[in-house]
Amino acid sequence: MTLNGWTLPWRQNGDWKEFHLVAEPVEREMAPGMIARLWGYNGQSPGPTIEAVEGDKVRIFVTNHLPEHTTIHWHGQLLPCGMDGVGGLTQPHIKPGKTFVYEFELKKSGTFMYHPHADEMVQMAMGMMGFFVVHPRDPKLHRVDRDFVFLLSAYDIEPGNYVPKVAEMTNFNMWTFNTRVFPGIDPLVVAKGDRVRVRVGNLTMTNHPIHMHGYDFEVTCTDGGWVRPEARWPEVTIDIPVGGMRAYEFDAIYPGDWALHCHKSHHTMNAMGHDLRTFIGVNKRTFARQMKQLVPDYMPMGSAGMADMGEMEMQLPDNTLPMMTGFAQFGAVEMGGMFTVLKVREGLAAGDYKDPGWYQHPPGTVAWEWKGPVPATTRAPVPATGAAPAAKPGETLRVVKPNGHGNHK
Amino acid sequence: MTLNGWTLPWRQNGDWKEFHLVAEPVEREMAPGMIARLWGYNGQSPGPTIEAVEGDKVRIFVTNHLPEHTTIHWHGQLLPCGMDGVGGLTQPHIKPGKTFVYEFELKKSGTFMYHPHADEMVQMAMGMMGFFVVHPRDPKLHRVDRDFVFLLSAYDIEPGNYVPKVAEMTNFNMWTFNTRVFPGIDPLVVAKGDRVRVRVGNLTMTNHPIHMHGYDFEVTCTDGGWVRPEARWPEVTIDIPVGGMRAYEFDAIYPGDWALHCHKSHHTMNAMGHDLRTFIGVNKRTFARQMKQLVPDYMPMGSAGMADMGEMEMQLPDNTLPMMTGFAQFGAVEMGGMFTVLKVREGLAAGDYKDPGWYQHPPGTVAWEWKGPVPATTRAPVPATGAAPAAKPGETLRVVKPNGHGNHK
Amino acid sequence: MTLNGWTLPWRQNGDWKEFHLVAEPVEREMAPGMIARLWGYNGQSPGPTIEAVEGDKVRIFVTNHLPEHTTIHWHGQLLPCGMDGVGGLTQPHIKPGKTFVYEFELKKSGTFMYHPHADEMVQMAMGMMGFFVVHPRDPKLHRVDRDFVFLLSAYDIEPGNYVPKVAEMTNFNMWTFNTRVFPGIDPLVVAKGDRVRVRVGNLTMTNHPIHMHGYDFEVTCTDGGWVRPEARWPEVTIDIPVGGMRAYEFDAIYPGDWALHCHKSHHTMNAMGHDLRTFIGVNKRTFARQMKQLVPDYMPMGSAGMADMGEMEMQLPDNTLPMMTGFAQFGAVEMGGMFTVLKVREGLAAGDYKDPGWYQHPPGTVAWEWKGPVPATTRAPVPATGAAPAAKPGETLRVVKPNGHGNHK
Repeated sequence: MTLNGWTLPWRQNGDWKEFHLVAEPVEREMAPGMIARLWGYNGQSPGPTIEAVEGDKVRIFVTNHLPEHTTIHWHGQLLPCGMDGVGGLTQPHIKPGKTFVYEFELKKSGTFMYHPHADEMVQMAMGMMGFFVVHPRDPKLHRVDRDFVFLLSAYDIEPGNYVPKVAEMTNFNMWTFNTRVFPGIDPLVVAKGDRVRVRVGNLTMTNHPIHMHGYDFEVTCTDGGWVRPEARWPEVTIDIPVGGMRAYEFDAIYPGDWALHCHKSHHTMNAMGHDLRTFIGVNKRTFARQMKQLVPDYMPMGSAGMADMGEMEMQLPDNTLPMMTGFAQFGAVEMGGMFTVLKVREGLAAGDYKDPGWYQHPPGTVAWEWKGPVPATTRAPVPATGAAPAAKPGETLRVVKPNGHGNHK
Repeated sequence: MTLNGWTLPWRQNGDWKEFHLVAEPVEREMAPGMIARLWGYNGQSPGPTIEAVEGDKVRIFVTNHLPEHTTIHWHGQLLPCGMDGVGGLTQPHIKPGKTFVYEFELKKSGTFMYHPHADEMVQMAMGMMGFFVVHPRDPKLHRVDRDFVFLLSAYDIEPGNYVPKVAEMTNFNMWTFNTRVFPGIDPLVVAKGDRVRVRVGNLTMTNHPIHMHGYDFEVTCTDGGWVRPEARWPEVTIDIPVGGMRAYEFDAIYPGDWALHCHKSHHTMNAMGHDLRTFIGVNKRTFARQMKQLVPDYMPMGSAGMADMGEMEMQLPDNTLPMMTGFAQFGAVEMGGMFTVLKVREGLAAGDYKDPGWYQHPPGTVAWEWKGPVPATTRAPVPATGAAPAAKPGETLRVVKPNGHGNHK
Repeated sequence: MTLNGWTLPWRQNGDWKEFHLVAEPVEREMAPGMIARLWGYNGQSPGPTIEAVEGDKVRIFVTNHLPEHTTIHWHGQLLPCGMDGVGGLTQPHIKPGKTFVYEFELKKSGTFMYHPHADEMVQMAMGMMGFFVVHPRDPKLHRVDRDFVFLLSAYDIEPGNYVPKVAEMTNFNMWTFNTRVFPGIDPLVVAKGDRVRVRVGNLTMTNHPIHMHGYDFEVTCTDGGWVRPEARWPEVTIDIPVGGMRAYEFDAIYPGDWALHCHKSHHTMNAMGHDLRTFIGVNKRTFARQMKQLVPDYMPMGSAGMADMGEMEMQLPDNTLPMMTGFAQFGAVEMGGMFTVLKVREGLAAGDYKDPGWYQHPPGTVAWEWKGPVPATTRAPVPATGAAPAAKPGETLRVVKPNGHGNHK
């Protein structure tokens, strides 16, 4: 299952599985309301997922319909040096209008990526990348019930524009799963009890710590191969390096709607609209004055943070998404970018993995408003021993002005 | 032991351990001389550490005294979906003035965190976070003598201001352990022979490689659980991902004052004062001219780097710390931010872990000034064989203008 | 083998191996055509590699010929606290003109680093660092045939200038292996069948994911020690944390020219020349207008990305390298910065590891231009089943306008 994507068809020709990739300008809807003009493969960015089987001989035709030359590097594959796709070093560049042939045998199963190794900064900043999954020859090995793949990519698209800036190094504003942003990203739908694998590749410029709620899990595969069981670590956040892939697995035993997102909080935001300009620090004097209003001392009527924005009807430029958006059953989710939901459900019909809607929580299992007397409150600091003072609801134990010092002095 | 922090008292109510967190504006002294106006819990940022035991049933009241809505996500805990704290997705937001109840059973021991999942960028940039330590039901499991916890957080506070800017993505200037900066951070005091654990959580926007001098050690726990012994790596620097926690352990067999800090050298600096403006690149022409003075060729009397600044009395804005500061027994330490000291001592009275002052080095164990003839010097390049020329002190072996090429040509 | 570097000679004096490091201003050719004025040791940045044997007693004289005080920290070594090199905390600073002595026994084999712990931000931004390799006492342990070491360092040098800016935190423009950039970096030459180790230390401000083509491999050593075999992961990209070292090993069984580089695509670029100013976003209005030309819709004659630049004769400022450069047997490589080539060759004369030139590919093993009819193309989206339509070359299966939705709906 390629999130918001698809698998490339192939045909058998003698001993060879033949695929055809076309590098070309594409349009990609990042979420309803925003189109990006990118470069990709076969009409989309990222390109389609290539799937094949360990031991297959693959022949891949690559046609270049871009305005400049390109190549494809098969990241992680073991292959003859001349098939490695490094323009100038291991092959001539593929000029516009030309088609090249790559041929190699798939020596091992695993999760690989493909992307250009020619004018690399520009071509990857424009969205040229895809997944290459090689299934084990023995289908019982590493078997799972649900297998999801997505690529992390990042774009720098000015609000109101369609084309990324390609020379940016750190300050991207569209952080994507498969060139889609929340709320435009498919949920991961699984049945309770399924064995689930999530394969995530990172072709941005920074690490992304992918955090999934509700479970702990282990990395079972990198783009270098399968990780032996005794070497695995328990994790709730997988830090995926640039140019790296991590596949993690878990048994879907806890039903619910579980957030799955990058834990860098800017990466779960979309590009800011022009109306927010005063918030992003261009004019520091104006900005500081506004920020002081966040603390009640400065603004007695208690003005707020940014939470209202998710619900506000703002005047955004054309082709621009709100910074924080998306609604679920309990209200505004206030997210964007690299955020989606793992939906674990009991009683799905066999093989029916279409979106089941929001989770119906059993009674009494949702955090609820307390209408009784407010419980006792203890404020910093307390004595070093940490002995718990006896307290009753409504009784204030102690309120001490914090002095910033530790409890052992 | 929460560095510069404290543990939240609780009370037993039937089967339940009850805690009360109050989200509210706080003041935090980052180090003597600088106060930050933040948002936190129970009078402090970070909030108090919650400690409980595997198998406990916990009921946590959360009262919102902020000017905007909030929630709390219990990062890493296994719990019912409706207790997961994702505003809009798994529960309604907690409006200002309201109190909500979270209830769950602690299914496993380990080291977890808590923070809002509502207007997340703003609320975490304002300091809302805390630790949640679950001790094993069997106290002999994973037992240590000293157990330290601290959170990495980062703020963007203009020199002279009190309130962070909340929309910054990378260029923070206050890099903290538990919202404190050197020299305001507690030392980690341990007795020689103690088994020591250090638990570090990262809720900033970038990886922090935590480096501790004097020892090698292993990660024994992540926020996903305990790491099996055969999977552990020897380390001197633990790279802590955003939204991740790493606990490492070691036997404190080497006495001394051992630096413990983030290895990104900007993160051991405090915010620069206005007087340094010409150093930080606003006017590149002026800056380049000044920097050329760093190399003697350009400035025959040999002007220096920045080391003098730590000792200089500079005119700083109000509420601003020097960029590099702190003194120890041998002079200026020239640090700030994410820096503290592990103090390993023989002969501490049982349980007496108050700051023992600076380490008294045994005679002859401190690097000393050499007053004899200057030894022979070899300069790049040397022949490929690397054979060591015989030399006597004072004799210059060879001085060759470096040409930048390797020794194998 | 220190890439573009050398090993420091020593002399035996009783029980002690004596070394002499001189901290001083140096010139370093980063690649032909660009000299940097840095600070280093013994005439070079990075300083020479110190090599010794487990159990050795080492005495290291450090002479300071810089215009400001310094110290040396022996990163990763187990040693007496007073030899740890933290100025102010564990020793007095070494004033200009003075020589200090460090003495310690090498308690364990492994790969360590040395660098100042005094005015650290400035001195490391100026290039002061080196490797310290301790070989096992038993030469059969961890034996390899080829053993390469290099340090990752980064500089911020304005095009046309010679001296780095020292206060930069993220936007460096010269990303180096041992203070050299492509095409100025030595290749790693090995014989087919050699066991190879590559030791990489990171003293920049950000993680570097070091990606090597053609192989998968395992990390066998960190700066904390040797990694037990059962804990190792298969990798094709090693994410090296700041202040960390990773050594990886592999059997060189695949001949060829294999790219070895940082996978952050900006780190395989050199500083941009002034002629590119309009590309790097100073004037966003102009830039956006130019970028729109990248997509054919906006610019019917199909103007290109940046690939031409590697081949263009541009007017660069003095002492400035092209952003993308280097030529190999098939044309322009379009790289810079942290990029070099692993050259695996059959039939090297024993011990003859000089550069063998470009790889002679066996016939039929290089990706080639296809002159026949263009194969069928499938464009996004396809049906969920992913069944491969039968197709013949030249036949277009389906062309559907992408709508951004997944294949399971």
